[in-house]
Amino acid sequence: MSKPIDFYFDFSSPYGYLASTRIEEIAEKHKRTVVWHPILLGAIFKVSGQAPLTSYPLKGDYALMDFERAAREYATPFKQPDVFPVGAVAASRACCWLKTSSDPAIVERLTPFVHAIYKAYYVDGRNISEADEVLAIASSVDIDKDALAAGIAEQPVKDALREAIENAIQLGIFGSPTTVVDGELFWGSDRLDQVDKWLSRGGW
Amino acid sequence: MSKPIDFYFDFSSPYGYLASTRIEEIAEKHKRTVVWHPILLGAIFKVSGQAPLTSYPLKGDYALMDFERAAREYATPFKQPDVFPVGAVAASRACCWLKTSSDPAIVERLTPFVHAIYKAYYVDGRNISEADEVLAIASSVDIDKDALAAGIAEQPVKDALREAIENAIQLGIFGSPTTVVDGELFWGSDRLDQVDKWLSRGGW
Repeated sequence: MSKPIDFYFDFSSPYGYLASTRIEEIAEKHKRTVVWHPILLGAIFKVSGQAPLTSYPLKGDYALMDFERAAREYATPFKQPDVFPVGAVAASRACCWLKTSSDPAIVERLTPFVHAIYKAYYVDGRNISEADEVLAIASSVDIDKDALAAGIAEQPVKDALREAIENAIQLGIFGSPTTVVDGELFWGSDRLDQVDKWLSRGGW
Repeated sequence: MSKPIDFYFDFSSPYGYLASTRIEEIAEKHKRTVVWHPILLGAIFKVSGQAPLTSYPLKGDYALMDFERAAREYATPFKQPDVFPVGAVAASRACCWLKTSSDPAIVERLTPFVHAIYKAYYVDGRNISEADEVLAIASSVDIDKDALAAGIAEQPVKDALREAIENAIQLGIFGSPTTVVDGELFWGSDRLDQVDKWLSRGGW
């Protein structure tokens, strides 16, 4: 059995969203699975010395244009949210709670939850920084919102997210999305074709 | 006759080099020509608030890996130079002098010169920040080095480069390479496949 593809993303990241709609198809083509790793770029930027993409003069304007064009390229629904970038702590902790559950029925809600949060933010324009929104979105994909509300308030879940981000930094991850294939890092939604080629050829 | 493809690049930029080896083939496929526009990122970064890629923690290490991997992907000769980033003022002024010559035989040396400078830096590891190196490389592609030496010292040539960079900033250019197709900007060597698709489909 081949190793899974590790997909690191910030829910606030438009390129993370765009790649999230394509990564499973690429993985499936190569008989791989996807492991979702939410990260918070705010924490990583403190180490890497970067700032949110749209905050840079010139580059920020280009980025806003490019988000929409990249979405059009693959006919992916996309609307630049009014609140941007957005704090994704609650949604990311929710992922950690889902991932670490001892109940497989809860663990398997992770993938639908990731897609539901991204869609809520990048298609429906909902403010996913609000815990109530996150709980309502979770409920829409059959996750018990009361259990989740309790879960994301637990210290071990908070610690798990912090540790996951620390681990990502240790791996050298600085941006969203980053796709890791057999230890090889690929940063950017625009590198998915390269990931696909890499998987087909077994490196180069 | 379709409009030419405008290719903005810094001679110090590895992604600019990699794209420079592919852009003409893409242009030719779509019956376009390439106009070379040297820029100096140092001047642009003052406006955009960026810093040289390899100066960022995490991102810099990734970039050094990615330069080589991107070169391997297309089997392009590449060796990370010891002096990096490099000041490309002399080489860029030389381009301005070649471009603005009233002698068509001199103007047509621009394309070989661009490739020769990039090869000298990214394959042979020569320090292209030194004017003597630039003149020697120019000489190797049949450019009169004495005429060029006089040319790059002329105030109008210096002004032409400064104005070209100002114009690039006005267009919203902040990175190297940037390919402009019918007013549409594409930043990055990893966007050349997107440029190719864009030209094939006439946008999307």
